[in-house]
Amino acid sequence: MTTALVDNGVNVEALLGAREAFADAPEIAQFQWRSTVSWVGGTHSRGEVQTFHGFGDEQTHRSRFAFDIDHPLQFAAQDNGITPVEYVLVALGGCLTAGIAAVAQQRGIQLRSVQASVSAEMDLHGILGADPDVRNGFSSVRVDYRIDADATPAEIEALVAQSQKRSAVYDILTNPTAVTVTVS
Amino acid sequence: MTTALVDNGVNVEALLGAREAFADAPEIAQFQWRSTVSWVGGTHSRGEVQTFHGFGDEQTHRSRFAFDIDHPLQFAAQDNGITPVEYVLVALGGCLTAGIAAVAQQRGIQLRSVQASVSAEMDLHGILGADPDVRNGFSSVRVDYRIDADATPAEIEALVAQSQKRSAVYDILTNPTAVTVTVS
Repeated sequence: MTTALVDNGVNVEALLGAREAFADAPEIAQFQWRSTVSWVGGTHSRGEVQTFHGFGDEQTHRSRFAFDIDHPLQFAAQDNGITPVEYVLVALGGCLTAGIAAVAQQRGIQLRSVQASVSAEMDLHGILGADPDVRNGFSSVRVDYRIDADATPAEIEALVAQSQKRSAVYDILTNPTAVTVTVS
Repeated sequence: MTTALVDNGVNVEALLGAREAFADAPEIAQFQWRSTVSWVGGTHSRGEVQTFHGFGDEQTHRSRFAFDIDHPLQFAAQDNGITPVEYVLVALGGCLTAGIAAVAQQRGIQLRSVQASVSAEMDLHGILGADPDVRNGFSSVRVDYRIDADATPAEIEALVAQSQKRSAVYDILTNPTAVTVTVS
């Protein structure tokens, strides 16, 4: 083990500390994540993210983050931001990549570079209501990693597999979640 | 019907035109959405989105969009961007809101303001591997709309319901999708 010499920038001790704290007070592990999305015009909206709840208290990000969401010019829209489905791909790649860095740190593997090519197939007959047998969402998603690290190919494969096993967004895509939509 | 006087900024004719074009050439409805996500350091990565495939050809956004993804300070990270799971909420709110604008346009309903409060519950025992019975992803998601429009409450409810029925991201969350992760 060369853990002491490895620095992927992830504070694994803090994460393990959180896990121990959760054992003593399981309620502090109950998180709520939030976004407020406001319509700008046409298919353009803006999503803002600033607060969340966790560790038993209200929490706030360092700043208010804002994101433009739109449809492309090819759909007679303004392309003021990426599409909703592309945000899902950013989320998936970001989640798996953070996991790879954390697992590598824990296993004493120094990373040099990690890049994910994320792609998703979608048949637009679904969202346009042109074929009731076609789903609205992705028919499939692929993530392909190129990783340069002080590790064997088998160790790198195992890193990616472990990240996948613990990934929130991978779970969100591969398993169903109840979503309630209301008007107040 | 007062459709001619209603302007929500959505070109419904173009969308209906696309649907007709798909009937003649179904293969042009096969889309591929993409993102390249690169590790920056720690849990910080950057997702870029520029190209996609659809309408039978390679397509490109007006510009290259880039997004920082990170974990918050409260997880001993740098908070250089929102978390992956928050990106999923931005995606969901953006998708449903664009749908509301499009359906309102088609139904001749003038929107004045639309705001979605999106929230998701998550038990961190999952991603920290502290309890194998807890999933990594959201336990539930809620979207609550406040909408000001030239319509009755029942018409507004129906708008939201129709958007939900045709939403790609709502489908992605509520139904499972196959995700393949590889290392090349």
